[in-house]
Amino acid sequence: MEKRNVYFDSAASTKVRDEAIRAMCSIMDNDYGNPSSMHSYGRNARKKIENARENIANAIGSKPDNIYFTSGGTEANNWAIFGAADAHARKGKHIITSAIEHSAVLDPIKKLKSKGWEVTYLMPDQAGCITTEAFSGALREDSVFASIMLVNNETGVINPVSEYSKEIEKRGYNTILHTDAIQGLCKIPFTVKSLGADLITISSHKIHGPKGVGALYIGDGVKITPFILGGSHEKGNRGGTEALPAAIGFGEAAKLEVLNLDDTRAYIFTLKTHLIDSLKKEIPEAVFIGNNEQTSPYISCISLPGYKSEVLMNYLDGEGICVSRGSACKKGARSHTLEAMRLKNNVIDGSLRISFSRYNTIDEVDYLVRTLKKATETIMK
Amino acid sequence: MEKRNVYFDSAASTKVRDEAIRAMCSIMDNDYGNPSSMHSYGRNARKKIENARENIANAIGSKPDNIYFTSGGTEANNWAIFGAADAHARKGKHIITSAIEHSAVLDPIKKLKSKGWEVTYLMPDQAGCITTEAFSGALREDSVFASIMLVNNETGVINPVSEYSKEIEKRGYNTILHTDAIQGLCKIPFTVKSLGADLITISSHKIHGPKGVGALYIGDGVKITPFILGGSHEKGNRGGTEALPAAIGFGEAAKLEVLNLDDTRAYIFTLKTHLIDSLKKEIPEAVFIGNNEQTSPYISCISLPGYKSEVLMNYLDGEGICVSRGSACKKGARSHTLEAMRLKNNVIDGSLRISFSRYNTIDEVDYLVRTLKKATETIMK
Repeated sequence: MEKRNVYFDSAASTKVRDEAIRAMCSIMDNDYGNPSSMHSYGRNARKKIENARENIANAIGSKPDNIYFTSGGTEANNWAIFGAADAHARKGKHIITSAIEHSAVLDPIKKLKSKGWEVTYLMPDQAGCITTEAFSGALREDSVFASIMLVNNETGVINPVSEYSKEIEKRGYNTILHTDAIQGLCKIPFTVKSLGADLITISSHKIHGPKGVGALYIGDGVKITPFILGGSHEKGNRGGTEALPAAIGFGEAAKLEVLNLDDTRAYIFTLKTHLIDSLKKEIPEAVFIGNNEQTSPYISCISLPGYKSEVLMNYLDGEGICVSRGSACKKGARSHTLEAMRLKNNVIDGSLRISFSRYNTIDEVDYLVRTLKKATETIMK
Repeated sequence: MEKRNVYFDSAASTKVRDEAIRAMCSIMDNDYGNPSSMHSYGRNARKKIENARENIANAIGSKPDNIYFTSGGTEANNWAIFGAADAHARKGKHIITSAIEHSAVLDPIKKLKSKGWEVTYLMPDQAGCITTEAFSGALREDSVFASIMLVNNETGVINPVSEYSKEIEKRGYNTILHTDAIQGLCKIPFTVKSLGADLITISSHKIHGPKGVGALYIGDGVKITPFILGGSHEKGNRGGTEALPAAIGFGEAAKLEVLNLDDTRAYIFTLKTHLIDSLKKEIPEAVFIGNNEQTSPYISCISLPGYKSEVLMNYLDGEGICVSRGSACKKGARSHTLEAMRLKNNVIDGSLRISFSRYNTIDEVDYLVRTLKKATETIMK
């Protein structure tokens, strides 16, 4: 009987690269000064963190000056949203977002709504995409900011963020465009220029860096109010001693991941294609959600209608396979993304998210398919 | 000619303990699941973070349930202040704080002031202490919260936080008491019960844990509004995937540091006493700031009136010795703490903070005194 550790949940968190771990250990051993201190230990720590900032900037074609470290994607999203709202409240009270955002976007916007902001929630089309038409239809002169994710964390669907940006420019509006690009970083080729967003959220632990660090890209001339206050860190825009070890690990991961972005993506694509082809053959009733060319190869959302996700997940877990149902951050709750796509209830209830990383193999995919097939034969519908 | 690396700036940041580094590496290698995920990797990560929470709770005599992870002391202070203000704005608009707080407290309170809150800034006595009388004199029925630090980061002076708490109780007020205990954790013996504060900020990188993680203790029944939103993490009170490696490092450091708190403190006390005795002998004009029994042995604030701190620091730095002037987080600025103590300008301008850790030696103290003496003989006043 085979039983192994197979991790297909890299959209929730990834294995940290050895190079990142080594760089972090070295920092903690040797360069433990406070980057704000004015002595040799401080200067060494400062050098290292600026080097990490450069690596991260390079990964998205930004200047290092536009990269601000945060404690992770969630803080970056909170900062972008509360910061834009606070700095530009005089321009209007309208916000555009989508019904398929991560809670780290939806929750701050919900709070703004409770304080009197008007919010338009764009609905995805049948494929799970927030179309340019939908965006364009909602955009108004008093839209202070819009926040739409680049790659959906549950379906992998890629939204046309650059088109939103062109739409704002075409209309000559001042709307600040924010995108949560956490599932896109080092996976989907993009640059700050190609996206055209004013604010971009990225995170370390989805690209084989450590948990506990992320960054917000703030475009030149874009004004947002600081969120965490206290001290002159991050040019006075984010108080608190920088999370040095984590930031160094993030920098290392970004540097290495972006180098091989195309190769890794091609490899991941073969894994996803193999998964889908095998599932079609072995479990013909399987449904593929958001599976088209506008989808990240890193995420595969499937459903076995009639089965319950939790039961399938438990079965797989018992066989040593980790997959997820929707976002880890909303455990227990029904997927708001799949609901917004107006999928049938039995499709939503039987959905699984299989997400890949460079460390997965074709052999592991075969094991997953075999085990899923066994599950359908074992579990009562 | 001797030239070595001597680090006397542990109040700014400390060397990370080997045990903490090892625990972090193991987590990143093996338990890289998302603690919110429902599979084996998620459960393992969850177990580890709950174990870290227990270690941290034990260090301050709290239940693990009252410990909420943050990205560091600054976020915890921001959360405590903005969270208390938001949750209890209906009770009044009065805040008590002191003129000698860290910017991570002063800056959020300044923002509240700009939004219409009334703020009383308590001034320290000549020894640098915020006395119970001062606190008592400012306390009003509509004082929504008070935020006074346990140990001042520049002078090491210990404030009578437990007395403030008794004062509030005596008057029967609902004032929420917050204390930034960052420089006290594992250095000054205290428990949540002995302090009697409702909210306590602690941080990892001042006790030989990594940078990038801290915690807020929230007492039973104390209500504050969440600050970072998104997801059900930390029982719905702090969004964002937990900084697992850093939290594990923090837990390890807290566990080990608190074990030897008394021994280490006694050792550090001998270092401080030796420094002061030697300085008195070698540089009779040296002034000792906040040097009494109500001061942490970990921090020694001295001054060589007539000299400039920056020049002294540079000289020491050139000889391989790291000390600081005031807080690392306020680089360049004049110490607001020493100004609030109404010290003479030449005392403030010639001040240095020498802060110790378990890794310092008597030999290093001797080298510091020797080098400082040489500095006074070399540098023009």
